[in-house]
Amino acid sequence: MKDVQNSYDDRKIPIQKAGIKDLQYPVVVLDRQNKSQSTIASVSMYVDLPHNFKGTHMSRFVEVLNVHRGRISVEEIEDILLTMQDRFECETAHFDIRFPYFMEKEAPVSREKSLMNYSCALLASLKKDDGRQVFDRVLEVGVPVTMLCPCSKEISEAGAHNQRSVITVRVRTNDLVWFEELIEIAEGEASAPVFSLIKRVDEKYLTEAAYNNPLFAEDVVRAVATRLRADQRVCWYQVESENEESIHNHNAYAMVEEKKTNDE
Amino acid sequence: MKDVQNSYDDRKIPIQKAGIKDLQYPVVVLDRQNKSQSTIASVSMYVDLPHNFKGTHMSRFVEVLNVHRGRISVEEIEDILLTMQDRFECETAHFDIRFPYFMEKEAPVSREKSLMNYSCALLASLKKDDGRQVFDRVLEVGVPVTMLCPCSKEISEAGAHNQRSVITVRVRTNDLVWFEELIEIAEGEASAPVFSLIKRVDEKYLTEAAYNNPLFAEDVVRAVATRLRADQRVCWYQVESENEESIHNHNAYAMVEEKKTNDE
Amino acid sequence: MKDVQNSYDDRKIPIQKAGIKDLQYPVVVLDRQNKSQSTIASVSMYVDLPHNFKGTHMSRFVEVLNVHRGRISVEEIEDILLTMQDRFECETAHFDIRFPYFMEKEAPVSREKSLMNYSCALLASLKKDDGRQVFDRVLEVGVPVTMLCPCSKEISEAGAHNQRSVITVRVRTNDLVWFEELIEIAEGEASAPVFSLIKRVDEKYLTEAAYNNPLFAEDVVRAVATRLRADQRVCWYQVESENEESIHNHNAYAMVEEKKTNDE
Amino acid sequence: MKDVQNSYDDRKIPIQKAGIKDLQYPVVVLDRQNKSQSTIASVSMYVDLPHNFKGTHMSRFVEVLNVHRGRISVEEIEDILLTMQDRFECETAHFDIRFPYFMEKEAPVSREKSLMNYSCALLASLKKDDGRQVFDRVLEVGVPVTMLCPCSKEISEAGAHNQRSVITVRVRTNDLVWFEELIEIAEGEASAPVFSLIKRVDEKYLTEAAYNNPLFAEDVVRAVATRLRADQRVCWYQVESENEESIHNHNAYAMVEEKKTNDE
Repeated sequence: MKDVQNSYDDRKIPIQKAGIKDLQYPVVVLDRQNKSQSTIASVSMYVDLPHNFKGTHMSRFVEVLNVHRGRISVEEIEDILLTMQDRFECETAHFDIRFPYFMEKEAPVSREKSLMNYSCALLASLKKDDGRQVFDRVLEVGVPVTMLCPCSKEISEAGAHNQRSVITVRVRTNDLVWFEELIEIAEGEASAPVFSLIKRVDEKYLTEAAYNNPLFAEDVVRAVATRLRADQRVCWYQVESENEESIHNHNAYAMVEEKKTNDE
Repeated sequence: MKDVQNSYDDRKIPIQKAGIKDLQYPVVVLDRQNKSQSTIASVSMYVDLPHNFKGTHMSRFVEVLNVHRGRISVEEIEDILLTMQDRFECETAHFDIRFPYFMEKEAPVSREKSLMNYSCALLASLKKDDGRQVFDRVLEVGVPVTMLCPCSKEISEAGAHNQRSVITVRVRTNDLVWFEELIEIAEGEASAPVFSLIKRVDEKYLTEAAYNNPLFAEDVVRAVATRLRADQRVCWYQVESENEESIHNHNAYAMVEEKKTNDE
Repeated sequence: MKDVQNSYDDRKIPIQKAGIKDLQYPVVVLDRQNKSQSTIASVSMYVDLPHNFKGTHMSRFVEVLNVHRGRISVEEIEDILLTMQDRFECETAHFDIRFPYFMEKEAPVSREKSLMNYSCALLASLKKDDGRQVFDRVLEVGVPVTMLCPCSKEISEAGAHNQRSVITVRVRTNDLVWFEELIEIAEGEASAPVFSLIKRVDEKYLTEAAYNNPLFAEDVVRAVATRLRADQRVCWYQVESENEESIHNHNAYAMVEEKKTNDE
Repeated sequence: MKDVQNSYDDRKIPIQKAGIKDLQYPVVVLDRQNKSQSTIASVSMYVDLPHNFKGTHMSRFVEVLNVHRGRISVEEIEDILLTMQDRFECETAHFDIRFPYFMEKEAPVSREKSLMNYSCALLASLKKDDGRQVFDRVLEVGVPVTMLCPCSKEISEAGAHNQRSVITVRVRTNDLVWFEELIEIAEGEASAPVFSLIKRVDEKYLTEAAYNNPLFAEDVVRAVATRLRADQRVCWYQVESENEESIHNHNAYAMVEEKKTNDE
């Protein structure tokens, strides 16, 4: 059979990314507490395509993924990217994976345990640059929290509007950082953390905690940024907070991003 | 050209719905305040298919819609359904349309005006039944509101968790009911309404109003149901409240439905 | 602390469903081939609420779920529903669960193995009715397939438009039916099945298979219905096909539903 | 009332973006054929916040939008951004707007007219940089098309798999470019355009046209890029194609991006 993808292309346009997007795939990811956990990922894999080749062989992406079936870790991902460079004879390989991730949390007073879900991602690439390999990796966590408005509290006789918010933290690091650490930073800097199971004593505690810790979206991204700025392992960070305002049908948003000057 | 759809089918299986789904289409809907407003709808149109016909002519749905291009109202929809019965030689025609709908609202204290968006729908069908035509029509509104938790308020020294919620009201009526009326009922029975533009005096007012009107999801669906039960024009209603809990990453939900006994 | 939810309500409006919606939770479901598989579910749990009670204790739903942590099967679900009736002192309990489900499939010619994902759900309820318990359970599978248009093939000199479609099958049964069986019926009646990994020999095979098996959305729902009508274990079925038309930006849709007369 | 947002913040962390996200708002956009069309937009507006200010006044964004109520055009957007800089005393203002956009198209043979919907966006910012104002604006169109696989056609005896794809084109320009122009480029370079209404003669024409014009995702992004590279008005472009593969449940993807060297 003719290999159409291997045909010559004369348009002189290199393609930065060609590949597969949003393949659903079961994975096992490293877990600080239980060593590993099973989850379901949405996987995207891309390679660059030199200007003289017509197309990419899409089946090879899934073959590479199948070889590594089972475990996704930082080490595995570098290996996957190397295999992609090799199989596709390309300069740059991209591997993006996004999955729900669970932590067992204890309610603050009753100590009832339950599973809390977070939205995590690993966005990685490997690029040949003048003979050396440049590996890039972004860890991302999406952390649901409670945010209580300082303005509403200040001006009102009683109460204050509050809402579910999602804090998204993305980091590049020069050393191991667990998803759990980023999650704990985000939860620790919000008005209050959220849980999937709380009893009345916890609800009292969390209501009062949030009321005593009013924060704007701007405050929480600064507080998380302050923590990441002080962390020597973190070279770059981006922090977003999106508050699903209980007094509006649109969201309040704040974002701060910093590339540390020592990151060279 | 051969008309494949008109072929004979011998499997003896009538099809309840065949048609098109989620066509995006600009429409003009009736508006209590301004007579009409332009919006963008997602339209689905189906007919039943007798067991002996192979397929439906999908292009005819869009032709019917094009003829009525411009206005969508209760009268238009009955006419669209009649045209569908005629063009498709069918017993039952379905026309479902879903669109964002806007009302100009005044903030409660500052009187600042702004546009508030709601998610509205009309779900209609016309069925030949023993020689007579049975028209069925459901009006639906999705209304974002503030809901404040009575339990959290009762047990906490200060504050109370609250959140954005969506109240969905569906009704069958024997007389004209405006979307605006259903929206106002839902907003009136929630802990507080939401606005797209409020000033500090309004934020104080709304924070205190919600704090003074704590309601469970169960309370608000009962309150809305009480209003609809008393409305002679309403033959059937379904009321849902989905609270995007600020203390959880999952939602609290309540639903009540009633078909009035006089609806025969 | 005061139990606000237990307060008396005098509005005389019973609530059909009160509970939690869209809780993310890891589950283990039965698997015909491997006994079990780990996946991530979206869980909703509701109970009815008599007219004289103000509210439901939302934390109890998650407690019930935690007790059964680990396994979700038909037997487990009945047990969960019984526990819900007991804990909430209610008449009716609902348990709805939706999750991605994977099967290992072999490509038709190369025999390459890969994992294919399907969207599955179990929608169950248990209701006390005049002293006896009525258990209701719907199995649902969403199966992506290839559909090729008979009209386009018939009238064109070469080629035929085809597209990804999703066939949704829902059944009530009086005996064990595996998700895998419903998936295989849907894949077997489409123009062709889809795979996550195929080689060129498979692509040739599947392209020709689809071209030789042109079907309307109406055809495939009838074909699946014919199979389910003949299956003695199935009491009720609903079959939908939604074709993501490659020649339109809207979808073609067909639905057939039948409650068998022996289902009394 | 105390102006909490105006408080001093001592954390020395400037915020790149603070504002509102996903506000639904009716807009009127310029239309090449009919001068203007009404549609519904999702609007996000952000400003930067110096390190010494605690928060942003969220209501001012909606006030700015309300003043410009009615028309959204390139000129209006620069004006909105200037007003934002002024009202918020900020260096950088962002205005992002996303909306369905319609064009009336004629079917290729029958000449039947119908409305086709596209997903359009304008992403704009204005930044004070050493005393001068830097205006940046990206136009984006999402264009549904038919794509037919060259490999499948080459290796199969008859037929070829094809699917709905979305081509996304983003450009920065130094002169007026209409959304309609970008849409026409994308439709012209795909295997075939799609329509909301076609008759059998058109279906024959489009089926054969696609079969005679097989293209990979990689081909179509190169073809569109070639057109944009030759257009003197375009300084930068990014072209994506995402094919909703009819033989897979995941998508094929290609992306090419170029900043022209004359763009200084």
